Amino acid sequence: MQAQTKATATAIDKKVDALIAKMTLEEKVGQMTEVTSDVVSKTNVPDHQLDAEKLKEAIMKYHVGSILNVTGHAYDRAHWYEVISTIQKAADQDRLKIPVIYGIDAIHGVTYTTGSTLFPQEIAMAATFNRDIAHKAGEITAYETRASYIPWNYSPVLDLGKSPLWPRIYETFGEDPYLVKTMGAAIIKGYQGNDVGDKYHVAACMKHYLGYSFPLSGKDRTPAWIPDRYMREYFLPSFTEAVKAGAKTLMINSGEINGVPVHASKYLLTDVLRGELHFEGVAVTDWRDIQYLHDRHHIAATQKDAVMIAVNAGVDMSMVPYDYTFFTYLVELVKEGKVSMGRINEAVHRILKVKYELNLFDRPVGNPEDYPKFGSEEYRQVSVQAANEAITLLKNNNHILPLKKDMKVLVTGPTANTMRSLDGGWSYTWQGDESDKFAAGKNTILEAIQQKIGKDNVSYQAGAAFDSLQNIDETIKAAKKADAIVLCLGELSYTENVGNIDDLNLPAAQIQLAQALAKTGKPVILVLAEGRPRIVTDAESLSAATVMAYLPGNEGGDAIAGVLFGDVNPSGRLPITYPRYTNSLNNYYRKNLENGNPDDKHGYNPLYEFGYGLSYTSFSYNNLHISKPELKDNEVLTVTVDVKNTGAIEGKESVLLYTSQSYASISPDTKRLRAYDKILLKPGETKTVSFKITPKDLAFVNDVSKTVTEAGEFKIQVGDQTQTFNYVSALNTPSRTGKL
Amino acid sequence: MQAQTKATATAIDKKVDALIAKMTLEEKVGQMTEVTSDVVSKTNVPDHQLDAEKLKEAIMKYHVGSILNVTGHAYDRAHWYEVISTIQKAADQDRLKIPVIYGIDAIHGVTYTTGSTLFPQEIAMAATFNRDIAHKAGEITAYETRASYIPWNYSPVLDLGKSPLWPRIYETFGEDPYLVKTMGAAIIKGYQGNDVGDKYHVAACMKHYLGYSFPLSGKDRTPAWIPDRYMREYFLPSFTEAVKAGAKTLMINSGEINGVPVHASKYLLTDVLRGELHFEGVAVTDWRDIQYLHDRHHIAATQKDAVMIAVNAGVDMSMVPYDYTFFTYLVELVKEGKVSMGRINEAVHRILKVKYELNLFDRPVGNPEDYPKFGSEEYRQVSVQAANEAITLLKNNNHILPLKKDMKVLVTGPTANTMRSLDGGWSYTWQGDESDKFAAGKNTILEAIQQKIGKDNVSYQAGAAFDSLQNIDETIKAAKKADAIVLCLGELSYTENVGNIDDLNLPAAQIQLAQALAKTGKPVILVLAEGRPRIVTDAESLSAATVMAYLPGNEGGDAIAGVLFGDVNPSGRLPITYPRYTNSLNNYYRKNLENGNPDDKHGYNPLYEFGYGLSYTSFSYNNLHISKPELKDNEVLTVTVDVKNTGAIEGKESVLLYTSQSYASISPDTKRLRAYDKILLKPGETKTVSFKITPKDLAFVNDVSKTVTEAGEFKIQVGDQTQTFNYVSALNTPSRTGKL
Repeated sequence: MQAQTKATATAIDKKVDALIAKMTLEEKVGQMTEVTSDVVSKTNVPDHQLDAEKLKEAIMKYHVGSILNVTGHAYDRAHWYEVISTIQKAADQDRLKIPVIYGIDAIHGVTYTTGSTLFPQEIAMAATFNRDIAHKAGEITAYETRASYIPWNYSPVLDLGKSPLWPRIYETFGEDPYLVKTMGAAIIKGYQGNDVGDKYHVAACMKHYLGYSFPLSGKDRTPAWIPDRYMREYFLPSFTEAVKAGAKTLMINSGEINGVPVHASKYLLTDVLRGELHFEGVAVTDWRDIQYLHDRHHIAATQKDAVMIAVNAGVDMSMVPYDYTFFTYLVELVKEGKVSMGRINEAVHRILKVKYELNLFDRPVGNPEDYPKFGSEEYRQVSVQAANEAITLLKNNNHILPLKKDMKVLVTGPTANTMRSLDGGWSYTWQGDESDKFAAGKNTILEAIQQKIGKDNVSYQAGAAFDSLQNIDETIKAAKKADAIVLCLGELSYTENVGNIDDLNLPAAQIQLAQALAKTGKPVILVLAEGRPRIVTDAESLSAATVMAYLPGNEGGDAIAGVLFGDVNPSGRLPITYPRYTNSLNNYYRKNLENGNPDDKHGYNPLYEFGYGLSYTSFSYNNLHISKPELKDNEVLTVTVDVKNTGAIEGKESVLLYTSQSYASISPDTKRLRAYDKILLKPGETKTVSFKITPKDLAFVNDVSKTVTEAGEFKIQVGDQTQTFNYVSALNTPSRTGKL
Repeated sequence: MQAQTKATATAIDKKVDALIAKMTLEEKVGQMTEVTSDVVSKTNVPDHQLDAEKLKEAIMKYHVGSILNVTGHAYDRAHWYEVISTIQKAADQDRLKIPVIYGIDAIHGVTYTTGSTLFPQEIAMAATFNRDIAHKAGEITAYETRASYIPWNYSPVLDLGKSPLWPRIYETFGEDPYLVKTMGAAIIKGYQGNDVGDKYHVAACMKHYLGYSFPLSGKDRTPAWIPDRYMREYFLPSFTEAVKAGAKTLMINSGEINGVPVHASKYLLTDVLRGELHFEGVAVTDWRDIQYLHDRHHIAATQKDAVMIAVNAGVDMSMVPYDYTFFTYLVELVKEGKVSMGRINEAVHRILKVKYELNLFDRPVGNPEDYPKFGSEEYRQVSVQAANEAITLLKNNNHILPLKKDMKVLVTGPTANTMRSLDGGWSYTWQGDESDKFAAGKNTILEAIQQKIGKDNVSYQAGAAFDSLQNIDETIKAAKKADAIVLCLGELSYTENVGNIDDLNLPAAQIQLAQALAKTGKPVILVLAEGRPRIVTDAESLSAATVMAYLPGNEGGDAIAGVLFGDVNPSGRLPITYPRYTNSLNNYYRKNLENGNPDDKHGYNPLYEFGYGLSYTSFSYNNLHISKPELKDNEVLTVTVDVKNTGAIEGKESVLLYTSQSYASISPDTKRLRAYDKILLKPGETKTVSFKITPKDLAFVNDVSKTVTEAGEFKIQVGDQTQTFNYVSALNTPSRTGKL
């Protein structure tokens, strides 16, 4: 509630209560019903068109409160104006004239509107370690979403990107709880602004609450095993922080945790979310998830039971999405006394409140003239900066990078000449499979390099498709003529279950292409454009330089070319561990046991560690200083460190502060990120970076699910500097029940 | 307590109490101290020799209650007589003359005694689906362990073999909770007999309590994430059953569950083990595990704290193993009041009681003359039968197997001619690395085939070492001359962290050997000798037949040859899922969510499913009948099915009964094994197999950690037959708290 004054909130609450008092049961349940736009659209027409009759039925008969976007692909603003206006006019025909709230997945820019500004995906935003960029990207996305007349964005993903197998890890801010929570809060504040009801902001939707990102198998929407303790320590903080940042809505995890589908968990949806986090906004299901309680999870014997269980657990709105069964069953359940009117009123209150907060009653559709900056150069520059700061230089043998602009370069590999490998899923379409059409005006890696150094200096051969070699002889011939090889490997676009894999290894053909090219003796510059860290060890061991691009978005091709040829000094850091082997997938915040015995060949040994990334300049760390050797309850420890640019060019440096607790009642993590900052340093320049650490920042979750900081010795690490201090406390005696 | 009458137990309890009353604190703590035999042995001598001075110190100064075996390799019975006699004579010098209990890892036969009977490893025993064989193997192992004058066997492993990566999965009875618990109880009854104190039986040690087998990374002794619910549903039942079967001792899991090292978990070691399972025996640590609480788990700030935490959690005996720090700290802690004398007396009572039960006071050393059957042909035949029934035929295209004995055969591959790949770890040495010396008289696969069909019919080329090709040209040349190729792939021996891997794929060289051989057009009979199901998909797709041998023990070479040439009709079934891909490691008792969408290429798709295995004859299932369509509380459902041998030769068939619950408050497993039997059928013969199912057999663990059976529809599946029934109950209303 930071974004609105208490008085406003109260005024809105009164309006909501007055409206609810007038509503029939059916009108209330209608508000809780969300259908996909397909349900109110014509079928078998070449382009998306609303169907007036279907829309009328949705509004007049079922009083639907919300429609979500599934329209196949991106449309222009004029189309969106037509769609939203038509829906809101229809809503205005209903007795109480309650506006519909239209929701959309604008997860890295308003990707379903042509001409919009597309940003790097969240994993790449995280690599910038720059909260300000995330905040700006949020502001711009909100502006362009409102410019598309849509007030509700199903973003950000606040899931912990813990499994490299999971096909949505690229939609996360990486593997670290602190990074996820800080980047998440920054983008939410960008989305919602100071007044979510103005013309330029939208309601954020934090997702997917809770524990979605760590299915045991790595495959999307499969069962997770997550003990309550780790749920609270690793997965919950980003949501806690998002609630504090004022996030208006929340989407629920489609998976099941320890056999409990989250859509059926009163514990998570009510006890924790409302009782502990004090979230007051709307909890909406994900796609068809109440129905799945019956036919996928098998925890409800009938579809009607599924509705009862979910609503009683705390679901406010059902993304049904194809029919009105939810409506029908819920009306019956209330009449039968199986769902209380209190629960219905609570849910409807939350839904109507966010509609008031978004000013949908007064301004159901925006004014087309109000958005002159939509798709502007000013906005594009922010995406450029984000991509530039995301690209992460992992290897640079003998300073081979940056390449000289007069070199002859072979560009090759399956990701070299497609926007799909830069934009990823959720770009113009669900699977991002039409990005080469919709982003035709943007540069692929090949096009950007051609533009940078001139077509005459660039040859191109595909070399391989994603999983088979192509024209390999021609490719080798071209390599022999070049001064350097830019080998672009990685993945095509995907999301959700379509992106599931059975093997984290990059397909063998891509490794073979690398091996064949390396044999030419020409330096191989490996560029990785991929949504997750596929195993590339056998290829990467042959590269002269390695550049991790993630999914850098529409400006990514230029950013990569900028890094390769020295117009951009790379400053990205890995927001995830890059694993070396397919069955060795530890996170950096491992337990000490995972480090392996000293004599263990198979201990902790990633290809590149979380937080790793090189620059074209060099930085030194000095004078790590802590304000006191002993930290007491309610005190603050000030940590300062001097960072100096010891190289020849200007560069940005992400300064990461880790702590380690020596001993605790729960086996402590080897180290944990507790603070970070990003600074710009001219050659020779030194800046003192300062961090404040409180005992709460050092907390973990103990054996009885309490978040505590236990007294004892801590180590602080910033760069190559370390300091030790003691936390002295009377607050938390170690609990030793040993509960699981 | 089934194996002893209440009266005997009481009599022993009185003796124990009388003895404890005489003991000093130091004498008590000494009983709780276990050191390795190294501590009382000479260093730098070529063969194992006790050191009289060190032994005297151990006994007279520290009063050690137990010594465990770490003597490098196997010795003959005479050596063991010398060792145990010397130790017990030393013990007899101490004030109270309490015998020492010597413990050993006799996990598939008394593997540290030369000339003993070595059985298949547990994973292969499980593949027999024959409880009687497990029971007999237990009896024989107990006999031969006592014949080595040792009364305490650190066996069986009752861990659930859930992760194919885990280097000790071969030491388990496979992935299924019911199979593990039934095979485990059978072997425990074999070890302990009706009177554990007679000359022929030993105290079993159920291990490793609890949750050891499922580290998140798959690597030994690394952190596990196991929610309490699944701990109880999947991991606990084998221990519950073992306690019911009277197991005398228990060894504790060295790992940490959800950040709690089990050695520090009062919840697991006291609340559950004593309070719920009512276990009355000795809980001993695993190797150095109290010290590891400080220096690996980091949950104790000092070594002394580690002792306090572990003993207060419920540890009775510490496998220290190299020094007397445990003794010193524990004496101090009791004097300081940090560990109660009650806790000490409780632990010592359990230790002394098992010593009395084993008759160590009256017969500290056995009589060499009493064991005429040690290493006998009678015993060997049981190992032969076990191996014969374990070998699992996975593929037999066009009935290519059995091969004719007059065929020319090339035997090749890295597992073809070494006992290490048949015996595995814990054979003569810890890592099983000297089996080719100690089991030189036993047949490797090559030797067994040569013996079976004559050396003239057999050519041999290694083809590959475990991870590199060898003399491949010669091998291909030999293949071209042969009628069939017996390609033996798999693993070398290992256990514990030495067996950790980073990639489940079989090393590339072995796959390449298979591919090269397949190109000859000669049929490839793939034999897999391996401790875990390494990914072999690209090789296996080329085989004409596939034989899974696991680690079949000393008689395994002959058993494999017997199957290949038709002297043995295979009847083994997979006790684990054989995965197809390295990052797709579901168990068969998956949740429905893991089955994947119908359109999902990456759903549940193992190479071979749990329970799979072919025969040289064929069986049909008919007339699956259930005694009633509705099962009520406290009723029994009788299930019968007719199984017919429809082929031309005699064969054994494992009849497996699975159930599935349609809906439950916790997402139900797709199916679960609830009963099995193994029958012998002559050609044309039909037998009716009968199973009894009670509501308890259908239970799962609900959201509040209660083991319940919820009313509803169930499906029974036996072979290709199915039946449905309803369980009608007033006992358990579904709980819907949704707790994790």
